[in-house]
Amino acid sequence: QSSVTLWGRINTSVESQKVGSADRKTVVQNNSSRLGLRGTEDLGGGLKAGFNLEHGLDSDTGAATGGTTFWSRQANVELSGSFGTVRLGTWFPDSYFSTVDRTSNHNHDTGTSSDNLFASFGFGARTNKVGYFSPTVGGFNFIGSVRAGEGSGPRAYDLSVNYEVSGLHVAGTYAQNDAFGASAKRKAYGLEADYGFGPFLVTGYYQREEVDGFKSRDIGRVSAMYTVGQSEFHVNVGGTKAGSDAEFRFGGAKQYTVGYNYNLSKRTKVYGFYTKTDYNGPGVPDFSSLAAGIRHNF
Amino acid sequence: QSSVTLWGRINTSVESQKVGSADRKTVVQNNSSRLGLRGTEDLGGGLKAGFNLEHGLDSDTGAATGGTTFWSRQANVELSGSFGTVRLGTWFPDSYFSTVDRTSNHNHDTGTSSDNLFASFGFGARTNKVGYFSPTVGGFNFIGSVRAGEGSGPRAYDLSVNYEVSGLHVAGTYAQNDAFGASAKRKAYGLEADYGFGPFLVTGYYQREEVDGFKSRDIGRVSAMYTVGQSEFHVNVGGTKAGSDAEFRFGGAKQYTVGYNYNLSKRTKVYGFYTKTDYNGPGVPDFSSLAAGIRHNF
Amino acid sequence: QSSVTLWGRINTSVESQKVGSADRKTVVQNNSSRLGLRGTEDLGGGLKAGFNLEHGLDSDTGAATGGTTFWSRQANVELSGSFGTVRLGTWFPDSYFSTVDRTSNHNHDTGTSSDNLFASFGFGARTNKVGYFSPTVGGFNFIGSVRAGEGSGPRAYDLSVNYEVSGLHVAGTYAQNDAFGASAKRKAYGLEADYGFGPFLVTGYYQREEVDGFKSRDIGRVSAMYTVGQSEFHVNVGGTKAGSDAEFRFGGAKQYTVGYNYNLSKRTKVYGFYTKTDYNGPGVPDFSSLAAGIRHNF
Repeated sequence: QSSVTLWGRINTSVESQKVGSADRKTVVQNNSSRLGLRGTEDLGGGLKAGFNLEHGLDSDTGAATGGTTFWSRQANVELSGSFGTVRLGTWFPDSYFSTVDRTSNHNHDTGTSSDNLFASFGFGARTNKVGYFSPTVGGFNFIGSVRAGEGSGPRAYDLSVNYEVSGLHVAGTYAQNDAFGASAKRKAYGLEADYGFGPFLVTGYYQREEVDGFKSRDIGRVSAMYTVGQSEFHVNVGGTKAGSDAEFRFGGAKQYTVGYNYNLSKRTKVYGFYTKTDYNGPGVPDFSSLAAGIRHNF
Repeated sequence: QSSVTLWGRINTSVESQKVGSADRKTVVQNNSSRLGLRGTEDLGGGLKAGFNLEHGLDSDTGAATGGTTFWSRQANVELSGSFGTVRLGTWFPDSYFSTVDRTSNHNHDTGTSSDNLFASFGFGARTNKVGYFSPTVGGFNFIGSVRAGEGSGPRAYDLSVNYEVSGLHVAGTYAQNDAFGASAKRKAYGLEADYGFGPFLVTGYYQREEVDGFKSRDIGRVSAMYTVGQSEFHVNVGGTKAGSDAEFRFGGAKQYTVGYNYNLSKRTKVYGFYTKTDYNGPGVPDFSSLAAGIRHNF
Repeated sequence: QSSVTLWGRINTSVESQKVGSADRKTVVQNNSSRLGLRGTEDLGGGLKAGFNLEHGLDSDTGAATGGTTFWSRQANVELSGSFGTVRLGTWFPDSYFSTVDRTSNHNHDTGTSSDNLFASFGFGARTNKVGYFSPTVGGFNFIGSVRAGEGSGPRAYDLSVNYEVSGLHVAGTYAQNDAFGASAKRKAYGLEADYGFGPFLVTGYYQREEVDGFKSRDIGRVSAMYTVGQSEFHVNVGGTKAGSDAEFRFGGAKQYTVGYNYNLSKRTKVYGFYTKTDYNGPGVPDFSSLAAGIRHNF
């Protein structure tokens, strides 16, 4: 009678991390491990109902990453049909999945080698949403959501348009958090492209973040992957060119990662990477890490 | 080897809510969403063992409604046989399921249109219980539980007698929380009847709450449902007649709800309702909401 | 596609407990109830990947025993092959499973009749570990783990060697928490043996705990079980001989338990026990409890 799928990912690495001028330390590190439940019911006539519950957990300590917001990654219910999908609840913005998540792809944009630079304010506005996912027509689809402020947070918007054809994916995105309390209105525009040909996948995104009353900043990242047999070789480089504006105190920063994955199966890989982020701003320590890990999907 | 059933309900609405004289606001609203695990083992000779774990979650934000009391709705183990069932742990009082839950039935007595008036002190005493569920004999059954105070809360009791025959259900209930610390002894008596005939279901309950050293108060509610095809039309009206006693500061209050459900399947419905609660007491703002939602059982 | 096993144990008793000179009180008691998920993937060539998530819960109240550290008992990922198993994350030390857990076996070393005396400092160091489990060769196996301190806790080590042949099990263990902040370096040595013959199982362990700058203390426990049909009769006695050193303020203490289990099936039992712990030290109240309970594995 029940039709629930349990799924998840445990992704744990052992790293030698260096933060600023502090001594290098050995760390057992979680890389956005998660546990999910999902289900779909066929309602007939092309209509479907479904739900998603997704919990984030620290695979090194067992802690819930959302504290008492247990289903911190997803909690939603939806109706789908030929018209597309209408969804209510909590989920991460598609302006992220369409851009950063596709570019920082050597380890699913998780852990210490995830993209430290992009404008992620939309993550904080992922609750209390109503969203629409269009069907894909001629390679195009559209995803939009509105977050209800409910008097306790900003109203927020997230939009993405995706186009996909023969190995090429292109996306344009927009995210906005309205002003709320002491927080100014904040907007981010994104463009992404990735192209796979033979053993290569090259990707890149550009993002512009604007905050009312402040200067804007620009963020970009490119990556390349080369696959041979069960091995993947990755390199990615990102930077932000922001000036000395108080809002973007990190000023300029750059990050690069070189990584190697060995796929034991589609579900399980062992991997290694070296990542380094140099912050120009005062008071923000540079970070680097040399890592070896296991990722197991279930 | 394992025999666990995962089940749950995600019930989320988008509402236009008005609290007192504050501006009307748009809210994505949870309606008592939940996730459960249950299992039964046949021990032979008519004996069975079983367990229930039930978690409450906010389907709008992903938060655990019980905070770190994760299994806030149920956590119990039981033995069943021809003698009935003996259960140990946490579960909601049957004085609720036999009365209010059957009357406020348009949306499972959840969310903003749930019964705001009935005496729910027994919910706070749902932990650390020993309970007995009788078999049904001649249409009658009996359910009783005792909560151990353990020096940190009130000892509490909950009793219900149910009779069911050809579409008619009648119940009598009693709940008691003993005095503990600054909290006076509290008792509630309940009577319920519901009757289904053809496309109609009419229900009603009456409850009397008594607090040592204070006046008592009376609470009542009636509801009616008309079903045609996949549609259900609901109306329910409740009120409490309490006087000006300090303990019942809400004084009189009344609540009414009109609702419409469209059942896409047995598991999934879309719905709309309008609900309004008028409180007579000072300092308690009136509440109203116009809602549209999706309920999906899994 | 998914290969997750849900498993767990709900173990709840009703007890009459006496703490020091306070009035005897009735308590509904959790006995280390838990819920787990595990999965294994065959990677070919004798290689396997797997994961464990294990949550501790209070079966009397529904609370998560680890608070927001939801997977407080286990959160780990591992690779296994002919070389043994390499595991990353959180799990309880094998110096516990090889000794105390085998001796205090009438109710899985849980609840009020669990071993109150042994040196359990390794439990606090169960996170952020890298571990190795050897294959069993000639009856011997070896389990070792290192916990990364990560600048926020002690580095820690845990070792056990087990030998098993024809009903006999022998173990030698070592646990160490390095000094960290105000906590001195702490070590524990353990020896265990258990032997099953016919309807009998006799067990015993000896543990020595040493804390830098303090006296050491010695802890021991013996137990015996007699099985007839579905019934098990248990007795176990433990004691610690520590002197008046400030670190071991409990000084000497002794604990004994007599228990009876009736196995309704392999998964489900009903049981009763009486347990008593006498502490010699000032300020530590003696404890005793008379209990009846249900344990249901799923």
